[in-house]
Amino acid sequence: MNKLKEPVYVTRPLLPDVNDLYLEIQEIIESKWITNHGQKHNLLESKLEKVLKVPNASVFNNGSIALLTALKTLDLPRGSDVITTPFTFAATPHCISWNGLKPVFCDIEADTMTINAEKIEKLITPNTSAILPVHVYGFPCDVEKIDEIAEKYGLKVIYDAAHAFSTEINGKPIGNFGDVTMFSFHATKLYNTIEGGCLTYNNNELKEKIYNLRNFGIKNEEEVVDIGINGKMNEFQASIGLLNLKLFKKEQMERLKIKNLYIEHLSGIENIRIPKMPKNVTDSCQYFPIVIEDHFPLTRDQIYDKLKKCNILTRKYFYPICSDYRPYTNLKSSSVANLPLANAVKHKVLCLPYYGDLNSEIIVEICDILKSFSKIPLKILAN
Amino acid sequence: MNKLKEPVYVTRPLLPDVNDLYLEIQEIIESKWITNHGQKHNLLESKLEKVLKVPNASVFNNGSIALLTALKTLDLPRGSDVITTPFTFAATPHCISWNGLKPVFCDIEADTMTINAEKIEKLITPNTSAILPVHVYGFPCDVEKIDEIAEKYGLKVIYDAAHAFSTEINGKPIGNFGDVTMFSFHATKLYNTIEGGCLTYNNNELKEKIYNLRNFGIKNEEEVVDIGINGKMNEFQASIGLLNLKLFKKEQMERLKIKNLYIEHLSGIENIRIPKMPKNVTDSCQYFPIVIEDHFPLTRDQIYDKLKKCNILTRKYFYPICSDYRPYTNLKSSSVANLPLANAVKHKVLCLPYYGDLNSEIIVEICDILKSFSKIPLKILAN
Repeated sequence: MNKLKEPVYVTRPLLPDVNDLYLEIQEIIESKWITNHGQKHNLLESKLEKVLKVPNASVFNNGSIALLTALKTLDLPRGSDVITTPFTFAATPHCISWNGLKPVFCDIEADTMTINAEKIEKLITPNTSAILPVHVYGFPCDVEKIDEIAEKYGLKVIYDAAHAFSTEINGKPIGNFGDVTMFSFHATKLYNTIEGGCLTYNNNELKEKIYNLRNFGIKNEEEVVDIGINGKMNEFQASIGLLNLKLFKKEQMERLKIKNLYIEHLSGIENIRIPKMPKNVTDSCQYFPIVIEDHFPLTRDQIYDKLKKCNILTRKYFYPICSDYRPYTNLKSSSVANLPLANAVKHKVLCLPYYGDLNSEIIVEICDILKSFSKIPLKILAN
Repeated sequence: MNKLKEPVYVTRPLLPDVNDLYLEIQEIIESKWITNHGQKHNLLESKLEKVLKVPNASVFNNGSIALLTALKTLDLPRGSDVITTPFTFAATPHCISWNGLKPVFCDIEADTMTINAEKIEKLITPNTSAILPVHVYGFPCDVEKIDEIAEKYGLKVIYDAAHAFSTEINGKPIGNFGDVTMFSFHATKLYNTIEGGCLTYNNNELKEKIYNLRNFGIKNEEEVVDIGINGKMNEFQASIGLLNLKLFKKEQMERLKIKNLYIEHLSGIENIRIPKMPKNVTDSCQYFPIVIEDHFPLTRDQIYDKLKKCNILTRKYFYPICSDYRPYTNLKSSSVANLPLANAVKHKVLCLPYYGDLNSEIIVEICDILKSFSKIPLKILAN
């Protein structure tokens, strides 16, 4: 296999036409209102409510500050436990920690790699206050079961939908489950506002509280009622967001084609598993993960290295898992015995390049390379 | 007095020429690198090190996340006390709280409204870990005394220099004192990056730790070593920052003229005090605060309301003070007895409109209005 001239990244940001962006920027500069709940910010919130089909959306400067604020909004008792998955990005457990709460890791499902709802129940103690499941790669968690457990034990549920923009389950938009759902609009996401994120929620009473918390807990000129933070999305982010709202569906269609092409060319290969989106779910098309099973001739890490040498940059996403992070290794729930599946899959999963502009020849080339690896007689360590 | 046709705000953001901005944006869009330590981000950091005359500058998405990270970087014992001023913006005590630390409020100086260094020493207990003084309105704290106290008691010092961009004390740049200094680049600041901020520090060893904490504590692809956050400044913010670096000195010169005009027209008025910048300090020109003394015929609140009716929007900055915020009222250090001067001045201080484009006729008009108030025979409550 030959090294590609230009590196192929795992993703590229969705970007508006530069002339459309100039018009937006001209308006911002002329208005002299560049942040603090400007017109574009407010317009984006109302448009997102329609696109995500939710009663309330509050936008943030990034998804982490959104998640931080979601947890703060729910007034969870200081020091209480929040059950979450280790198979997620660092923001998930860190936002729990920043709130003075303790992450408790729960193992995942083998097929979708989302949190194992059955196992959640076994981790609940009188100190548990909430569950923070993640719709990882856009695979929805078992929302019905989780919401049922939460109701049974009086727990709050905050869904991390960083990977699940516009996903629907049986026609129900994913931002409608649990108490609050967080979406990420980072550059690497299907839909981006440069950096950014939002919270969606059905309870209208949370709106004012989230508004205040996002702006330092300031209620009005005379009152500061809570320990808030600066989570404000500025007008430049919001203008990219407004323009990208017109583009993300086309991007999604392009990615669907790429996904089908990958599936077509990879499905014959033994011991490479392609996790399947359930039929009742619309795919956000955020990532294209494959699982390199034990009997494949090369390990995931060997494949990653070999592709990198060809200038094809894949991602070991998620490796390490959160229970491996230095601040969390000492947690009881971080033991490998508690998390056998997450600890197995972290060595097997690989996200392949996946974005609308990706050339189909490159996709076929990647698949051919993987096919050629599958024919190597046995696991070899040499490069 | 007549109502002005257009509202006069207390500040307006410094903004680059829109065509210069288009060029920057074209570059960003073409590069497809819109955040995560991009070229403009890195260039801005190196340019800021020169402008602020500091060995290290790390930029952030906003000043609050910068301050949050500064405290986290210093590994202060969980639950320990941080002595700070109540006469500051909400971000100051909130960042202490988000770190699981306790703000302890110390009273201020009558003249500069900065923290009273003498009183700091009396508040130190074995549980004290740090001091967080604020160079409020750009008036430098008594840095020599504070650094001396810190050394004596083995405390860390984090300066909040949100108001003090480019200030120097006896020719020494203000970002060089204490362990870490935070600057804010919010739209309302002399120098802005839309939203933004930075940390400066002399200890080179902090650089990597701050870099990691700003990006979720991720050290490399294989290791997450700390509970970090998303504090990354994106490329659009950085490009505004690069352009505004070329403009802020001119803005400062314009503000100096405005300041002198205010002083000229206000200095005859009895019971309006204009806090003076010490001779050995270069003024950042961030705010123009005046103090309405007790014997002035109108209270500060009455003046604020009357000016508002004329479409002149001043700010009661800082009112309320942080010890009045709902989450902090129960702290022992929030008692009025502990903070007599801060509690007095919070009813007296008013920040007047102050930005380069401000028309000198409006300044004279504001001064004339204040002069007319001074001739009212006695305090009246009517509007």
